[in-house]
Amino acid sequence: MRNVFCKVPLWEASRTLAAVAGGREPAERVILHARLVNVCTAEVQEDIGVAIARGRIAMVGDVGHCIGPDTDVLDAAGQYIAPGFLDGHIHIESSMLSAGEYAKAVIPHGTTGIYPDPHEICNVLGPEGVKWMMDDAARSPLKTMFVMPSCVPAVPGFEDTGSFVGPADVAAAMGWERMVGLGEMMNFPGILSGSDHAHDIVGATLKADKIVTGHYSMPETGPGLNAYIASGIRCCHESTRAEDALAKMRLGMYAQLREGSAWHDLHEVAKAITEHTVDTRFACLISDDTHPHTLTALGHMDHILRRAVEEGIDPVTAIQMATINTAQCYQMDHELGSITPGKCADMVFLEDLERFAVTRVLIDGEIVAEKGRMLAELPPYAYPEQALHSMHIKDAITPESFVVPAPAGKDEVEIRAIQVIPARVGDYEKHVTLKVQDGKLESDTEQDVLKTVVFERHHATGAKGVGFVKGFGIKRGALASTVAHDAHNLLVMGTNDADMALAANTLIQCGGGMAAVQDGKVLGCAPLPIAGLMNDKPAAEMAGLVAGLEEAWKQIGCTLPSPFMTMALIPLACLPELRLTDRGLVDCTAFRFVPLETGEEA
Amino acid sequence: MRNVFCKVPLWEASRTLAAVAGGREPAERVILHARLVNVCTAEVQEDIGVAIARGRIAMVGDVGHCIGPDTDVLDAAGQYIAPGFLDGHIHIESSMLSAGEYAKAVIPHGTTGIYPDPHEICNVLGPEGVKWMMDDAARSPLKTMFVMPSCVPAVPGFEDTGSFVGPADVAAAMGWERMVGLGEMMNFPGILSGSDHAHDIVGATLKADKIVTGHYSMPETGPGLNAYIASGIRCCHESTRAEDALAKMRLGMYAQLREGSAWHDLHEVAKAITEHTVDTRFACLISDDTHPHTLTALGHMDHILRRAVEEGIDPVTAIQMATINTAQCYQMDHELGSITPGKCADMVFLEDLERFAVTRVLIDGEIVAEKGRMLAELPPYAYPEQALHSMHIKDAITPESFVVPAPAGKDEVEIRAIQVIPARVGDYEKHVTLKVQDGKLESDTEQDVLKTVVFERHHATGAKGVGFVKGFGIKRGALASTVAHDAHNLLVMGTNDADMALAANTLIQCGGGMAAVQDGKVLGCAPLPIAGLMNDKPAAEMAGLVAGLEEAWKQIGCTLPSPFMTMALIPLACLPELRLTDRGLVDCTAFRFVPLETGEEA
Repeated sequence: MRNVFCKVPLWEASRTLAAVAGGREPAERVILHARLVNVCTAEVQEDIGVAIARGRIAMVGDVGHCIGPDTDVLDAAGQYIAPGFLDGHIHIESSMLSAGEYAKAVIPHGTTGIYPDPHEICNVLGPEGVKWMMDDAARSPLKTMFVMPSCVPAVPGFEDTGSFVGPADVAAAMGWERMVGLGEMMNFPGILSGSDHAHDIVGATLKADKIVTGHYSMPETGPGLNAYIASGIRCCHESTRAEDALAKMRLGMYAQLREGSAWHDLHEVAKAITEHTVDTRFACLISDDTHPHTLTALGHMDHILRRAVEEGIDPVTAIQMATINTAQCYQMDHELGSITPGKCADMVFLEDLERFAVTRVLIDGEIVAEKGRMLAELPPYAYPEQALHSMHIKDAITPESFVVPAPAGKDEVEIRAIQVIPARVGDYEKHVTLKVQDGKLESDTEQDVLKTVVFERHHATGAKGVGFVKGFGIKRGALASTVAHDAHNLLVMGTNDADMALAANTLIQCGGGMAAVQDGKVLGCAPLPIAGLMNDKPAAEMAGLVAGLEEAWKQIGCTLPSPFMTMALIPLACLPELRLTDRGLVDCTAFRFVPLETGEEA
Repeated sequence: MRNVFCKVPLWEASRTLAAVAGGREPAERVILHARLVNVCTAEVQEDIGVAIARGRIAMVGDVGHCIGPDTDVLDAAGQYIAPGFLDGHIHIESSMLSAGEYAKAVIPHGTTGIYPDPHEICNVLGPEGVKWMMDDAARSPLKTMFVMPSCVPAVPGFEDTGSFVGPADVAAAMGWERMVGLGEMMNFPGILSGSDHAHDIVGATLKADKIVTGHYSMPETGPGLNAYIASGIRCCHESTRAEDALAKMRLGMYAQLREGSAWHDLHEVAKAITEHTVDTRFACLISDDTHPHTLTALGHMDHILRRAVEEGIDPVTAIQMATINTAQCYQMDHELGSITPGKCADMVFLEDLERFAVTRVLIDGEIVAEKGRMLAELPPYAYPEQALHSMHIKDAITPESFVVPAPAGKDEVEIRAIQVIPARVGDYEKHVTLKVQDGKLESDTEQDVLKTVVFERHHATGAKGVGFVKGFGIKRGALASTVAHDAHNLLVMGTNDADMALAANTLIQCGGGMAAVQDGKVLGCAPLPIAGLMNDKPAAEMAGLVAGLEEAWKQIGCTLPSPFMTMALIPLACLPELRLTDRGLVDCTAFRFVPLETGEEA
């Protein structure tokens, strides 16, 4: 993969690098006396120096002769240096941060490169939105190597998204020079069944000689996994059992072991390499989804490395899994992922290989962070108006918008409710009997059942899906969110129509986000004006807003852990069993619409 | 690197592969009950099946459901299967075989892919000759992934070659779809000193996102090696000590451990991985130069694997070094180098992991060899007339062509002789006093000094270099060869002018080759009509011709081992100390021409 994420291409820097290594020109910067984590040979080498020029590594070893009068000398005595950490699969949108703010949040933790799949913004704003996010990312030194979303919409025909991505769109995106591959191919049923749409999207990526990333979330590791890998998919982050990860590695697929804010897979999947004596070159560490408070409280790849070592993975192996292995996965190891001559001078200073305390971060030879503080200044980036005004709802939302008329002549109605499961992605279809009140169906807090409405918000079609959700524990008030996977329509849930209307309108007013309302008062709101998904505030501020919102959730009675996540998955029609999109209730096992009332046919 | 060396691109085969893995379509061929050498995880897995369709692997594991009525079933019970062997650095010309015949010689030994550097034919015929060799190679199933010669001529200004390769030629060649990178950059002095010519040639390759292969033959592993690697060079086969190889691996360079016909490096360099606990992903096995008799008597990569295991390398590690590591070096691991879904079905059946007895070879899913016998038929390839008539010598060669007039008025003359060293590439400048006979200088078998002449043979310039060589032990007769590195002019050596003229004219008549003559009789001749370097005869036949020639050499008194190699290096002006090209005697330490007579200035 040709690297455009560098200060200077190697062919422009090579004469200088040769001159610096040879001692004919001074290095711009040298590091002395470091304990080098050598990810090529899996060793720690003592008392190593590194000479840097034009953003690249000129020499590794004894570099005294590379020092000139103007060379900046960094003494690393007592410190380890490792290649900058790479996150091979991540959705920036999950952090609720703009790409620039995300970079500021993770760089001080040692991350120097990420491979984001901008699946969420693409669902809202299409390939154009992806380009804007790329522009947002380009202002930061973080190497942000995008992959093109492959499944927009996630479940065609069952929801209205802001966009559609087909093979031609993918082919076009592969021509963008900062695009390095295809985003997670979640449509594994399509791949397995030979769908032209799915295979053509993968094919457009392979033809461009770029990397296809995967999402194979089934426990089956036989014919299905083989069919999936044989179709050209190179990596997958959906292993939840050690045997999943091991099966993938054995089949030549990069097993991206995940430790995100909501997905704590490492404890199990680490066993693939701690309980088996295998070559680990096909194992990587990735975050997938990280919320702002995780970034500020725990960190990013440094946290995942810490967790990996806690799970018994050798520290040098763990660092390989966050550096050279990921670079090899993306075939960018000639440019990234090791501290060796010619590579981009992306590296991390560490106090130890247990806590992974990052003291200094270099990208392209520049010191971009020190002692947890970001040093590089980012120029501002203004998303275009279109991105900041993504709430396109046909009719004004009033309390009446939430009225659910009961079938005539009935006192009570048995309905299909979506029963959520704490901290799990799946849900159940639960049948609940609601009393008819004034000819309408209402939330029933006694039964922990909340009225839920999804408003189409992309093309002002007026589409509106109505259902009931069970399990949030909310006693009085309403919640709204535009983070509602994957179409990110406006999702509103509550005990009464007035609060629901207020929650909805609060978000419409601020361009999208998440809000909690009680008795006509906004208790908490995290505005996410960029596509209704992100905010350009710093991570700490966003973490504060989210913490306030969490408080508000509790105040109105919510008993769930990570309620945002559980709420955001209510419309995700590729997960079992029952989901609510803007088009209605979807039976996600049979893939068909079902009516609210049980016993009826759609 | 996009793979064009396959039956069908993956994007055309993916639907079929998914259908076969899923059991909806039968496989074309399956292998059952194999002991799989899994090079991804470095394990041997028992009782594994492989399903194949459209030249690719659809599934690995339990493949019973992939068998249909027309599926060819291969029972591999008791056998190992491994990915087909890859040779990451090789000169086909050294085998004296055409590319097609070379393929026939190595495929039965388990080789399924090679990365040839057609340096010799390019010196004679230029990029056009490289293209012809590519066409020759294309008729065989062997994946022949060419790299473009980088150093033509090897030492500009000191010899006349048939061609010149500059940065623009390299840039053009990178556009040829079967060209995967740049041939060994032997001009490491140019790289280290920042020569534009050398850096632009490397740069043209990097810009095309292709692989730059190396040749760094100095024992220095500090500034020089760093400068060389920093300039973008990814691999090197010139390690002769374990510390050379280890230094390269630590610096992120693929250390290609060599075991050729004349270069037996493995005994030493294997210690880089047997005496150090290091990750071996940066270690590869390669052959570089293999003579026809080695191919027929010992084999190819199977022989090198055997040698690696003899030197204490773990067999699975050794196989990784001849498969996935090489594929990763060339960033073609998504297509080659492992038995995993989606990859080209290139694989080898082995009886054991010690002798590496190859019983069956598959390329693109077809059985191409069985029990040492090549099964695939190759269509003929006819090199164009230009390639078959490469002897362009200005004047007719007669005994008078070899007359060396002595300086007037001297009875004896002290001259510079080239003192060869048995089985070593270096030589010495040795001063020898010759008696003047009839006003001429002649060979002196008493002192083991032979008259030697190099005739320019590419552009009929009439250039002719004259010198004396010491150490071959020849008593009566003459030798001639057009295998004379790297310019491959016509090199003639002998005790008398008549035999020398006959040896030269014998080669002119047969289009080049190697000949031995005594008393007006041709004792042995190996015609190499393709560029004066190769012959389209089968390996066994060529080995026979070479054996006959060896006999002739002995008959005329030669005492050296591998006399061909020693003779062929006489003109190689990039090796120390004294060499003879068609332009004259070259002091290869100071890089200047020197006169035959000592004490004179050039």
